[in-house]
Amino acid sequence: MVPHLTTALTGPLLALEQHILDSQPRIEQWFRSKWQEYNAPFYASVDLRNAGFKLAPVDTNLFPGGFNNLNKAFLPLCVQAAMSAVEKICPVAQRFLLIPENHTRNIFYLQNVAQLATILRHAGLHVRIGSLLPEITAPTVLDLPDGQTLTLEPIRREGDKLKLDGFEPCAIVLNNDLSAGIPEILQGLKQPIIPPLHAGWATRRKSQHFSAYDQVSTEFSQIAHIDPWLINPYFASCGKINFHERHGEECLAAAVDELLKDIREKYREYGVKNDAFVIVKADAGTYGMGIMTVKDASEVTGLNRKQRNKMSVIKEGQQVSEVIIQEGVYTFESINGAVAEPVVYMMDHFVVGGFYRVHTSRGQDENLNAPGMHFVPLAFETSCTLPDCAAGPDTPPNRFYAYGVVARLALLAAAIELENTAQ
Amino acid sequence: MVPHLTTALTGPLLALEQHILDSQPRIEQWFRSKWQEYNAPFYASVDLRNAGFKLAPVDTNLFPGGFNNLNKAFLPLCVQAAMSAVEKICPVAQRFLLIPENHTRNIFYLQNVAQLATILRHAGLHVRIGSLLPEITAPTVLDLPDGQTLTLEPIRREGDKLKLDGFEPCAIVLNNDLSAGIPEILQGLKQPIIPPLHAGWATRRKSQHFSAYDQVSTEFSQIAHIDPWLINPYFASCGKINFHERHGEECLAAAVDELLKDIREKYREYGVKNDAFVIVKADAGTYGMGIMTVKDASEVTGLNRKQRNKMSVIKEGQQVSEVIIQEGVYTFESINGAVAEPVVYMMDHFVVGGFYRVHTSRGQDENLNAPGMHFVPLAFETSCTLPDCAAGPDTPPNRFYAYGVVARLALLAAAIELENTAQ
Repeated sequence: MVPHLTTALTGPLLALEQHILDSQPRIEQWFRSKWQEYNAPFYASVDLRNAGFKLAPVDTNLFPGGFNNLNKAFLPLCVQAAMSAVEKICPVAQRFLLIPENHTRNIFYLQNVAQLATILRHAGLHVRIGSLLPEITAPTVLDLPDGQTLTLEPIRREGDKLKLDGFEPCAIVLNNDLSAGIPEILQGLKQPIIPPLHAGWATRRKSQHFSAYDQVSTEFSQIAHIDPWLINPYFASCGKINFHERHGEECLAAAVDELLKDIREKYREYGVKNDAFVIVKADAGTYGMGIMTVKDASEVTGLNRKQRNKMSVIKEGQQVSEVIIQEGVYTFESINGAVAEPVVYMMDHFVVGGFYRVHTSRGQDENLNAPGMHFVPLAFETSCTLPDCAAGPDTPPNRFYAYGVVARLALLAAAIELENTAQ
Repeated sequence: MVPHLTTALTGPLLALEQHILDSQPRIEQWFRSKWQEYNAPFYASVDLRNAGFKLAPVDTNLFPGGFNNLNKAFLPLCVQAAMSAVEKICPVAQRFLLIPENHTRNIFYLQNVAQLATILRHAGLHVRIGSLLPEITAPTVLDLPDGQTLTLEPIRREGDKLKLDGFEPCAIVLNNDLSAGIPEILQGLKQPIIPPLHAGWATRRKSQHFSAYDQVSTEFSQIAHIDPWLINPYFASCGKINFHERHGEECLAAAVDELLKDIREKYREYGVKNDAFVIVKADAGTYGMGIMTVKDASEVTGLNRKQRNKMSVIKEGQQVSEVIIQEGVYTFESINGAVAEPVVYMMDHFVVGGFYRVHTSRGQDENLNAPGMHFVPLAFETSCTLPDCAAGPDTPPNRFYAYGVVARLALLAAAIELENTAQ
């Protein structure tokens, strides 16, 4: 089952997909040359929005949390890509310490951790899971719905190394995005940390990512002979903002206004009849807290207390101070009337699968990765690496291939971003 | 459906598989370090024999011809591995010229060529197929059973480059093992040839391969704490032999005798009640022509004319002059009463699948890859990369993992062999 593209404006996207298909050898050669130049992140997931006339990444997660949602048939693909990743980043390692987010009750997330551990074990590593939670003082066995269990163990620091009881890891794999800052226990370690600490939200900025994406998508567009806007959402950032004290509102309103103008011009160019909109969100952070859909600059100046509170707090209680204003991209994919947003998973520089977030009670212009959002995952039914030039541009293998290409552009942007921000 | 292991002597193999499972992280780390040292061949297939008490490679093909026999579900795995291989060997290439064997009527082989082209196309390459056959003077469309077609085109040499009409390839992929020698048209080319010409039987020798395998399996056995004999067939080679003129028969008989003694000693050590046997075959060449099963040295001295003729001619009419004498390994796998021999496929250093050659009219001590042998391929039902430590050593995922490990040892031996024989 594949979501249906519910737009009359499929023309340009079909044209985009057709361009991507036609340029496949040139695109893959270009990616090969880029991966000789940049190191792919260990893993990543990219949220895409498919507006029919436009297919673009809106978020790139360097600590992906939905491996459990992938088609189980793709497990060998994940294992092979994990082998590649380990080979490049940490070939001598035999024992990995996996440090997840501080959840003990989010069953969906715990299944992700279990799946990730399974992938790494199949790739030939000893994997144990260490928790940063202070209440984990002894090995704690958590039950999973499929009958498996997950054991969280307390982490011990000895000098500049992390250990578990009877387990000396060669490397540390983070599945924790460090939204709450870099905990002291992870600082100054001798063991390699994968991905590196500066991939966490304690230092990462979406605006830096999308700057790199600008560069990548512009170069790619020349290769594929397309208008870069078709794969690149406009964005702006706006320095320090304090929603509580209403500092920076004017700068925000001006940026929103300018962005909306640019988008409307593009909408006119492509004959798009929908309202232009932007998304205002924290420049650092994840989990979709503090996200606002804005269709007019006036909406960001007259925020009431409730709205200001909502925008002020993101994951783990961090205050929003820097925001990114990003062109909103409509989701015109739907399945049984519910909005569906594709998420593509990668390990090393390989696309290993993906799924749709399917959400019945959200609109086409809303973020589907928001708090309290209980989406239903729908695994991609085929691989993203089997484009079929003989078939139409919108048949599933070809749509998935286009997803995989755009997701890899975001991955490349992340690689450049991480290189730029490394000390 | 997985072949049944029909031996009372499963003990040592289960122990071998258990050792391999237990040592998985050490084994994978060891492979990673080896692949940093040696370049994996572009692709390869390895014929294994599973005697229950012993699991060993008996032939390593660097121009594999059965991609059509792999489980179709593994196609994404092949594509991903092909991407890795291209990335390492020829990252700038966009256009591949694929040169197959000189068959136009072997439907099974043509399906392999079509599947290989499909894999490379999915990996993002323009692929066209050039034939070395003089009778292919214009593009020739061949029909395949699945409704697809395969177009063979005449190759043109211009200076030090090969071309097809309107197609200038960046690199040449050989699926032709050069048993008939290196054709002039392939000599001194500027385009990279993958695998290199010296991987062909014009220069390759099985004895060099198995010398390298000796080295690899000895080192591996220390890692996995096993007796190397459990994965390594004894072998000897015997200089120039002319079966027609009966030159070299005595040397051959002496080598056979010594090898049989060594094997019988091992059989005693492991309590194997079967007769020891050796295989005498051409040191260069493939297709199983000129292969003899020998249980006593006297069998090679008293050859009648018919037997001598059979041993004298291999593929493309080459005269056998050097032979290898290899310990025979029983095939104790069977399915519905038919003997089954596993063949493992690899691209780059990844195991991408495999199949069983199932043959009803052959014995457990005969070569299943012999002329006139119409085996039924039975694709491996699961991947070779999903070992399950919680399950028994002989459950399919674990047996396939063991196959994959032993096949990769042979692949590593081929990498060393190619490095040793490169000019």
